[in-house]
Amino acid sequence: MGAALIESAGMKVQRQSFAVRSETRRQAIDITPRVRAIVIEAGVREGLVFANCLHTTCSVLVIDSRPELFEDLSHMMGRFIEDECQYKHNDPRLSDCERGNATAHLRASLLGHGVAIGVSGGELLLDGSQSILLAEWDGPRPRNVHVQIMGV
Amino acid sequence: MGAALIESAGMKVQRQSFAVRSETRRQAIDITPRVRAIVIEAGVREGLVFANCLHTTCSVLVIDSRPELFEDLSHMMGRFIEDECQYKHNDPRLSDCERGNATAHLRASLLGHGVAIGVSGGELLLDGSQSILLAEWDGPRPRNVHVQIMGV
Amino acid sequence: MGAALIESAGMKVQRQSFAVRSETRRQAIDITPRVRAIVIEAGVREGLVFANCLHTTCSVLVIDSRPELFEDLSHMMGRFIEDECQYKHNDPRLSDCERGNATAHLRASLLGHGVAIGVSGGELLLDGSQSILLAEWDGPRPRNVHVQIMGV
Repeated sequence: MGAALIESAGMKVQRQSFAVRSETRRQAIDITPRVRAIVIEAGVREGLVFANCLHTTCSVLVIDSRPELFEDLSHMMGRFIEDECQYKHNDPRLSDCERGNATAHLRASLLGHGVAIGVSGGELLLDGSQSILLAEWDGPRPRNVHVQIMGV
Repeated sequence: MGAALIESAGMKVQRQSFAVRSETRRQAIDITPRVRAIVIEAGVREGLVFANCLHTTCSVLVIDSRPELFEDLSHMMGRFIEDECQYKHNDPRLSDCERGNATAHLRASLLGHGVAIGVSGGELLLDGSQSILLAEWDGPRPRNVHVQIMGV
Repeated sequence: MGAALIESAGMKVQRQSFAVRSETRRQAIDITPRVRAIVIEAGVREGLVFANCLHTTCSVLVIDSRPELFEDLSHMMGRFIEDECQYKHNDPRLSDCERGNATAHLRASLLGHGVAIGVSGGELLLDGSQSILLAEWDGPRPRNVHVQIMGV
């Protein structure tokens, strides 16, 4: 992990990671400021940034950052992927996983683990209400987010 | 917004945006021709293109462009995320949003706001039936699509 | 299709595709080793890799590779998008498609057709349990996966 910055004839390829810690089972963590700071530090004016969580049971997605909306999202995911269903991943006869966290895997893959955002004028290309959220489905846990920037 | 084309030792980083206008509440707008034209204009032969909508209540996704299929998709999203459910985002005691558009936020984040497509021989790497669709969940509205191309 | 490797002042833009063949209607095919081999062959140390399926009725996603978890995912997709529902795409009066595969289109678009993964030290930036899966929703069929690498 760590970080790397390589510049080749004006093109920059910058990798950086950071840690966040979720405090509850399901939680929304707005990582937009962290991603923005990495973009500014990299000094890339035009290009792309990717933010990915390096875990199978949390998501990284773009959504409006109003807190009540994540409660709606979390409730929706709970209706889609019900805690009380029977999952093979939670059956010790079929799986070597002891966490019983099938729902977290399924919710994470349904929403995805990463997003790509444009960079223009050194700024993230998001509209005013778009935020990059790490959605925790199996917390509390420490989580790592990988940020990759390419551009000029 | 606007556009920028920067070339650095043979690598091109091209940004372009365009506007579309949805005419109904839910609507599929095929943006493949617009994205293809931007790729051709950029003159990138090998690389990647990203198309993102800079909004929280519409999606950009890849799907077969047959119109009846979007009706199936729209119907499916309506079953998943029902208009008549109670959403905190639509409750004026909990949210400062006056549009009552929780379903549009949830549908948009579930399908995602952007896609990455390869570029080869100056052409979008899509099979014959794949299209890039802007899926409007809260129209009618003007919408901006951001296109970022990187390559040689 | 085929492959191309272009190097411009230290930046590499590498395209490669490979074929897989699904054997059943719904199937999980772990394509991580194929993508990893292409990254190693390209000799890119720092950058990004994109894996996309060039089809409308299968998905490429990141998920834990335990086989029982794909059975849970497949079961979940079957509950979301029921085979026995009425779909316009399956109605010969409304569609010119004769495969009756509306559910495969919808499942594929819901999970997405491609993923972006970081490359660091010449290795895919995945945690130990993350895998890149081609999820077949309309097999058995031959499928093509497009891999695009950019970096240094």
